[in-house]
Amino acid sequence: MTPEMVKHLPEAELPALAQRVRDVILETVSANGGHLAASLGTVELTIGLLRVFDPPADKVLWDVGHQAYGWKILTGREEAFGRLRRHNGISGFPNPAESQYDAFVAGHAGSAIAAATGFAAARDRMGGGHVVAVVGDASLTNGESLEALNNCTSLAEKMIVVVNDNAMSISKNVGAFARTLGRLLSDLRYNRAKAAAERAGHRMRLTFLRPAYHRAEQVLKSFWLTNSLFESLGLRYIGPVDGHDLKAVISALQVAKEDKRPVVVHVVTKKGKGFPPAEANPARWHGVGPFDLKAASMPADGGGAPTWSECFGSALTDAARRDGRVCAVVAAMKEGTGLSAFAEEFPGRFFDVGICEEMAVTFAAGLARAGMRPVVAIYSTFLQRAIDQIQHDVCLQRLPVVFAVDRAGCVGADGATHHGLYDIPLLRPLTGMRIVAPTCAGELKALLDESLAAEGPTAIRYPKGAACAETECRAAPSGKAVTVELLAVGDQVEKAGKVRRLLSERGIEATVVPVSRVKPCAPLKRPSGRMVATLENGVVAGGFGESIGADIRFGWPDALIGHGSVDELERMFGFDAESVADEICKRAGK
Amino acid sequence: MTPEMVKHLPEAELPALAQRVRDVILETVSANGGHLAASLGTVELTIGLLRVFDPPADKVLWDVGHQAYGWKILTGREEAFGRLRRHNGISGFPNPAESQYDAFVAGHAGSAIAAATGFAAARDRMGGGHVVAVVGDASLTNGESLEALNNCTSLAEKMIVVVNDNAMSISKNVGAFARTLGRLLSDLRYNRAKAAAERAGHRMRLTFLRPAYHRAEQVLKSFWLTNSLFESLGLRYIGPVDGHDLKAVISALQVAKEDKRPVVVHVVTKKGKGFPPAEANPARWHGVGPFDLKAASMPADGGGAPTWSECFGSALTDAARRDGRVCAVVAAMKEGTGLSAFAEEFPGRFFDVGICEEMAVTFAAGLARAGMRPVVAIYSTFLQRAIDQIQHDVCLQRLPVVFAVDRAGCVGADGATHHGLYDIPLLRPLTGMRIVAPTCAGELKALLDESLAAEGPTAIRYPKGAACAETECRAAPSGKAVTVELLAVGDQVEKAGKVRRLLSERGIEATVVPVSRVKPCAPLKRPSGRMVATLENGVVAGGFGESIGADIRFGWPDALIGHGSVDELERMFGFDAESVADEICKRAGK
Repeated sequence: MTPEMVKHLPEAELPALAQRVRDVILETVSANGGHLAASLGTVELTIGLLRVFDPPADKVLWDVGHQAYGWKILTGREEAFGRLRRHNGISGFPNPAESQYDAFVAGHAGSAIAAATGFAAARDRMGGGHVVAVVGDASLTNGESLEALNNCTSLAEKMIVVVNDNAMSISKNVGAFARTLGRLLSDLRYNRAKAAAERAGHRMRLTFLRPAYHRAEQVLKSFWLTNSLFESLGLRYIGPVDGHDLKAVISALQVAKEDKRPVVVHVVTKKGKGFPPAEANPARWHGVGPFDLKAASMPADGGGAPTWSECFGSALTDAARRDGRVCAVVAAMKEGTGLSAFAEEFPGRFFDVGICEEMAVTFAAGLARAGMRPVVAIYSTFLQRAIDQIQHDVCLQRLPVVFAVDRAGCVGADGATHHGLYDIPLLRPLTGMRIVAPTCAGELKALLDESLAAEGPTAIRYPKGAACAETECRAAPSGKAVTVELLAVGDQVEKAGKVRRLLSERGIEATVVPVSRVKPCAPLKRPSGRMVATLENGVVAGGFGESIGADIRFGWPDALIGHGSVDELERMFGFDAESVADEICKRAGK
Repeated sequence: MTPEMVKHLPEAELPALAQRVRDVILETVSANGGHLAASLGTVELTIGLLRVFDPPADKVLWDVGHQAYGWKILTGREEAFGRLRRHNGISGFPNPAESQYDAFVAGHAGSAIAAATGFAAARDRMGGGHVVAVVGDASLTNGESLEALNNCTSLAEKMIVVVNDNAMSISKNVGAFARTLGRLLSDLRYNRAKAAAERAGHRMRLTFLRPAYHRAEQVLKSFWLTNSLFESLGLRYIGPVDGHDLKAVISALQVAKEDKRPVVVHVVTKKGKGFPPAEANPARWHGVGPFDLKAASMPADGGGAPTWSECFGSALTDAARRDGRVCAVVAAMKEGTGLSAFAEEFPGRFFDVGICEEMAVTFAAGLARAGMRPVVAIYSTFLQRAIDQIQHDVCLQRLPVVFAVDRAGCVGADGATHHGLYDIPLLRPLTGMRIVAPTCAGELKALLDESLAAEGPTAIRYPKGAACAETECRAAPSGKAVTVELLAVGDQVEKAGKVRRLLSERGIEATVVPVSRVKPCAPLKRPSGRMVATLENGVVAGGFGESIGADIRFGWPDALIGHGSVDELERMFGFDAESVADEICKRAGK
């Protein structure tokens, strides 16, 4: 299906098209895993956008991009969609390198209005089509969205912001902005009232005041209160529109397109729409692994090894039981960071600030200055949003804030926008920042306790997936001359063990040295005559290997690291055990 | 003067106190240089805060901190104030290490409401006093401020946000938020109207509607429109209050203190108040060098060497004349980044987004994707705010955005919150980011032109102050055996020349190798047997020296680098020419 075909389909066939898109999404995601609930909610909106606008001349930016599966399917990628999130298959997020219809990269929330303002300002000067930013209500509360909302009307003549309001962040939406949107929706009389108020207001401007206006007063007040967030920022407000009523969506988008001013279209959708289990529990069905579509059920918890996130959550809960000052701060990632149980047991010490990483960090700094012991639980990739706050608000004051840096390292299927490959280089230069990387779950707990007792800030980094168990014997068999030291940071110990075995088979004896203290670095013995190789799950530039001047530094290169399984990506970039062993052999002249 | 004394001064003596504070500020800043206009505007507000609240039990957070000179003077630091911004003297920004009355570090805009929310949430759980964030109207438009405004009412029972509205950023305020505040002020009838509307509204709730209410309608509408930004976020709005009317300020703060809810107090002040030249031209008198207080005039431009910023501004203007796609983006730093003339010549290609570094970068990414050639001119320290946007929105799409990283390196008197010591380590890990550091003004121009023609992103870093001239002969005299290579990054070439001379006096011959390409690094000859030393104006961790595995890496250590002259700080941290030469001699065994 192409945009051209969607545009010319008879109106009567659109509901069937919507159903087909949902079927494709369900079929693929149940097989490959992926983001399910958000894209099920935007099917009609996607069709509406393609009926009203003309991409790629018109630009549509998705914020965040996991709403855009339907967009991918209807812009020439229905067949390719079967390889969603697979290596060399299509990306789970909009990607201009993949399709001319993907106007902008969109893996982190809050960027679309700012980018759209850039497109629109360029269009005003150099020509071009319409610019539409589709922003989830949770993305809208991100600081960058709000910066852009405040500035867009000054910088661009015309642009359209579609607020996709499903009243959800990934978990539950927070903040006054969300309450305002919610209040608006809860008023059943709203649309009627609004129309009455507008008519009355219009007459009023002509003749000052009439008795007829009185009846509209109360609703007028409610109207101004709810719309004024947008109206006072200079954007015309259209809505709320039922996002699953195709006619209503198309008509609202058409009005928005024809208006000469910047416009906000407030579209109300249901996350998970069309798939009852996801409608009932959208948080659980936000991002999923493969599942049984017919039974509409996710595989039972296999009782496998606990994830790093789970280990962290349980360690933090333990710590909070012992110390009333310990508290947790998340940016819309309660479930993902393993803190559901913590939040249940300590609701008064659990803070979710929504998708506001900057605020999360400075808020934690305030908590710490006031005597609490906050732990900011955050994915490595989203931590990038708050580097300045970590330096300026935490490090310069040596505050005891702990950063639990989850998803640190290659994340696999989520791809380029989500890899946690930069935290070591980004945190290492910050003043007095300690960085540790546990090599197993037990060490995670010990390092967390130690960090909570420390005077300054600490970052504890660990990857996605199952936590490593206690590691096996690491030394080379005694009696043989060791020629290589393999310094393995955190989760890389297991791989280093494999490298050691491979090297041994080829006559090179190596010792694995687990490194859990990245900065400051624990004193390292570097027996002369031995080659020192480092393995770290992050980019090499600015990483641990450079900091100690290792002879060979294994990690991720300065390249675009796409999506696929971690194994596939490691092989592709020469960071799997075999490639590492090969490279060491080459350097050793064997 | 202590807070206790301010509190118990007879009311009649307060105006004289205000005058005294202004005199001290003017005397010191005219001698030492510093931020002048903002602090002159907040004198009555400061007195009001000290009359109504009880620091240090009550916490007052300044955003940004250059408003807080009066606060320093009235919290026991009047005498010390004479050494403002001097080495071992008091800091130009609030600093908890300096005084118990400085609740939080505040050199970057937008952090106070978030930090105050942290203080208030901790207070709600562990006890404590009032929490007040004093936020400039420009700081209020920063994304982090908006994130915190949106979240504060959910996270804390009670806190007070004082909006210090002087209708100025450092230069001129931008954005819809500023227009809203401005609209409110321009309505002369506002206060009367608001009172009428409130009375009417109150009656109305009791008896539905009365004819008496009609007269208030139009102002009611204006009232809701203007207040609702705050009211819809759940904060009670008090204001606007004349910020130079002591009684009005004290009374508003008292009301805010007694209210049980989160409150915004909107205080209107005049930047530069009490010093006519600054009142007339607050942008020019925002931050100043020493000046003649009696003549009320700044020293004439001495015709000295042009600054790096000026060289950049003129090079960019040249480029824009040749290429219609070239445009500039700043975050409230038109004058500081040397772009006043550019903005005048190319108003349609000059974008000021206010203190919104995140938006600046993503907006530039949008411009670049749409075919323009944006240059984001930004101070190194503020660039830290947008690291994620640089990686996610620019680097992952390989967009041709140029970052003109001004104030890169030690900035001297502005101190810890403002040093530009982190940009090399923070930018180096980002995907495909090029980093260059011109060694002289001519090279800055050449590198800018080259960057504008490049396919991906480039950062051009240069320090505060006068641009280096073409550098002198760098090689050791022929015929002598060179034992040290001094690799000098950008502005460090001159210092390296001095080191070379010092070494030569002690019998060690060195060669200076200017390094203007930091990443990727130009191929370096490393003749065997020579010691390789690097000099870079940034922290060593993650810097250039590490990246090339230099034998000795000179730069700034992982420590709190305070304020003072650059020379003093270099000596203190062993980064002046003498210390560098000493260290090399020591390593060379001489």
